[in-house]
Amino acid sequence: MSQKVHNFSAGPGILPDEVIQQAAQAVLNFNGTGLSLLEMSHRSKEYVAVMDEARAIVKRLMGLGDDYSVIYVGGGASLQFAMVPFNLLTADNYAAYTSTGVWAKKAVKEAKMMGKVQVVASSEDKNFSYIPKDYVVPADADYFHCTSNNTIYGTQMKSFPSSPVPLVCDMSSDIFSRVIDFSKFDLIYAGAQKNMGPAGTTMVVVKNSILGKSGRTIPSMLDYNIHIEGESMYNTPPVFPVYCVLLTLQWVEKMGGIAAMEKRNNAKAELLYNEIDRNTMFAGTAAKEDRSYMNVCFVMQDESKEEAFSKALKEANISGLKGHRSVGGFRASIYNAMPIESVQVLVDVMKQFEQIHA
Amino acid sequence: MSQKVHNFSAGPGILPDEVIQQAAQAVLNFNGTGLSLLEMSHRSKEYVAVMDEARAIVKRLMGLGDDYSVIYVGGGASLQFAMVPFNLLTADNYAAYTSTGVWAKKAVKEAKMMGKVQVVASSEDKNFSYIPKDYVVPADADYFHCTSNNTIYGTQMKSFPSSPVPLVCDMSSDIFSRVIDFSKFDLIYAGAQKNMGPAGTTMVVVKNSILGKSGRTIPSMLDYNIHIEGESMYNTPPVFPVYCVLLTLQWVEKMGGIAAMEKRNNAKAELLYNEIDRNTMFAGTAAKEDRSYMNVCFVMQDESKEEAFSKALKEANISGLKGHRSVGGFRASIYNAMPIESVQVLVDVMKQFEQIHA
Repeated sequence: MSQKVHNFSAGPGILPDEVIQQAAQAVLNFNGTGLSLLEMSHRSKEYVAVMDEARAIVKRLMGLGDDYSVIYVGGGASLQFAMVPFNLLTADNYAAYTSTGVWAKKAVKEAKMMGKVQVVASSEDKNFSYIPKDYVVPADADYFHCTSNNTIYGTQMKSFPSSPVPLVCDMSSDIFSRVIDFSKFDLIYAGAQKNMGPAGTTMVVVKNSILGKSGRTIPSMLDYNIHIEGESMYNTPPVFPVYCVLLTLQWVEKMGGIAAMEKRNNAKAELLYNEIDRNTMFAGTAAKEDRSYMNVCFVMQDESKEEAFSKALKEANISGLKGHRSVGGFRASIYNAMPIESVQVLVDVMKQFEQIHA
Repeated sequence: MSQKVHNFSAGPGILPDEVIQQAAQAVLNFNGTGLSLLEMSHRSKEYVAVMDEARAIVKRLMGLGDDYSVIYVGGGASLQFAMVPFNLLTADNYAAYTSTGVWAKKAVKEAKMMGKVQVVASSEDKNFSYIPKDYVVPADADYFHCTSNNTIYGTQMKSFPSSPVPLVCDMSSDIFSRVIDFSKFDLIYAGAQKNMGPAGTTMVVVKNSILGKSGRTIPSMLDYNIHIEGESMYNTPPVFPVYCVLLTLQWVEKMGGIAAMEKRNNAKAELLYNEIDRNTMFAGTAAKEDRSYMNVCFVMQDESKEEAFSKALKEANISGLKGHRSVGGFRASIYNAMPIESVQVLVDVMKQFEQIHA
C-alpha cells in the first residue's frame, strides 16, 4: 500500500505536487528576497508582478482579449451571488437564473434579495440529478445566470444556451477543466479552492462593456469597476491565495493548457464512470448525459455495505470520498490536479470490493 | 552585516519566525495528515478544530465572554466599511464617525453611500498628524466608529471616548498590541495582515446584542449574524490565512499575552522615538502625545539626504521603510513580531548616518 494520500476532496481540493512545493518555499523565502510571502508588502515590485501575471495568464488560457478584465477578490463565490446583481441588475427589470443545485439556488436567493428574478429552468423536481435543457433565455432580462457544474449533485452543463443578454456563469467547480468558447460569456466567476488554487480568493472575468449600467449605489468593495481600476489591488488582496492560483495556472499552461486538461479529465472520468456502470455494487446518481467530469457521485446498491466500503477506501489511503449529505453515498472529485493513477486506485478498490462482497 | 532582513513593512507585515516555519510545514503536510492544508476540506475535523480555536483564542486574549462572537471573513477591512452600516445603520437615523486618516475617511465614504453620517471629529486640517480629543459622542447616533491606529500617518488613540451608543473600532493596525478594556467595545474589526497574520482574512469581534436591528435587507455574505450562525463557515473560509492567524495568536499567548506584547512594543517604540528626537537629522511627523507605537513616521530635516539614507538602510538589510506617498519620508512599522534587535539595527544606522552626514 502506497503512503500517498489519494485526495478526492470536493473542495478545497487537490493541487499539483509541484504547486505545493513552490508554495511552501514562498512561505519560507519568496523568490530569494529573504522574506516570507506572508509578510511582504503587496505593493512590492515582486508581488505586483505576481498579481499582473495571475491576471494575464487567465486571459491567455481562455483566449480572451482586452475587452475583458480579470480580478481576484475575497469572500468566495458566495459573495459573487450578491456582487452580480449589484453590478448588473437594474431596479426596474429582472434577471434570469437557472436553479440546478445548492449553489445555484443560493445565487437565486441572493439576487431575489436585491430585485426581481425569474428562474427559467430548474431541476429541483428530481433532486437536481439532471441539467434542464428545453428553455429559452428571455431577451428582455438584464442578464442570464447559470452554474456550469454542480459540485454537490455531480451534474455538468455540456453546452450553454445561446443568450441574447449578458451570459453570467459560476464556474467554480469546473473552471479550466475543458475547452469552452469563453468569449460567449460576459461574466465568469470561480472560487479558487476547487480547480485553481486554495481557498481565500475568487477569480472574476468580466467583459468591460456590461459594467456601470445597474444604476445602483454599489459599496466600493462590491463594485467590479473599482477592483478593475485598482488592477485588483484596490485594497490588500489575498496575497498568498492569489500566488498559489498563479502557480496552479502556470502548471496548467505547462501541461498544455485547457485542451490538455480536458484530455486528462476525460480519461479519468471515463475510467471511473465505466467502473460505476460495470460494477454490480454501485450506481451513479446523475443523469448519464449530464454527468460531471469533475464530481462523480455514486451510491451503493446495498446501502448497508457503505461502512465496509468506507473501510476499504481508508485502507487504500483514499480520502475525501464521502458524498454530500443532500445526496448521500460517495463523491469522487477528480479535479485537474488529480492524477489518473489515483483514480485507478479507486477503481481497483471498487473491483476488489465487488469480488469480496458481491 | 547580518544576512537577516529587518522587515519594517507597513502591511502585510512581519510575522514571527516560528509562525512562518509552522505555516510552511502545514503547506507541505498538515498535522501529519499527508495532505497540504491548501487542499484539505474546511469541513474536515482537523480544520474545524483550527477554526474553533482561532475564534476561541481571540476571546481568551481579549478577556471577553459569551456575549461576544468572533468570525473571520474575507474581503479585508475595506469590506467592513460597508458591512458595519449594513448591519448597524438604520434608514432613518445616522452614524457618528471620526476622520483621522486615509482608512477612516474611506470608512466614512462607504457609510455615506448607505445613509446619514456625522463626522464628529477630524484631524484633516493638519494632514491627520494628530488625534482629535475634545468631542462628544452623540447619544442619538446608531453607533460611533473610530480608528484606533492610523497606519499611514503614524497616530494612535491613546484612550477611547466613553460612548453612549455602540462603540465600533477599526483596530487593523494595532490589534493585540496593547492592553485595552475590550469589553467597552461593541464591534472590533481588524484586517489580519498587519499585526495578526497574512493578508486574506479579517477578524470581527461583535457583541451579539447589537445585531439584527438595522432593518436592512443584508446580502448573506455581509450579514454578521449569518457568519456567526455558521460558526465562521457559512461558506468556505480563507482556510490558510485563518490558520496563520491562529499560529500568530498562539505565539502571542505563549509570549505572555497582550500585556507582554505591550511591554515589548513600548520598549521598541521608545527606543526609536528617542532616537528620532535626539538625532539632528530626523524629525517625527505626528503630534508627540498621539504617536503610534506601531507605525513610526519620520522625515529628514534635509530632504536631499533621503537617497543617501535609503542607501544606508539597504546596506543594513532594512526593508519596507519608505513612507506612504501622502506623508513622504520614512515609516518604520514595528508590529508585535518585530524584535527589538531589528529596531536597534535601524537606530544604529540613524546614529551612524548622523556621524557621517551631519
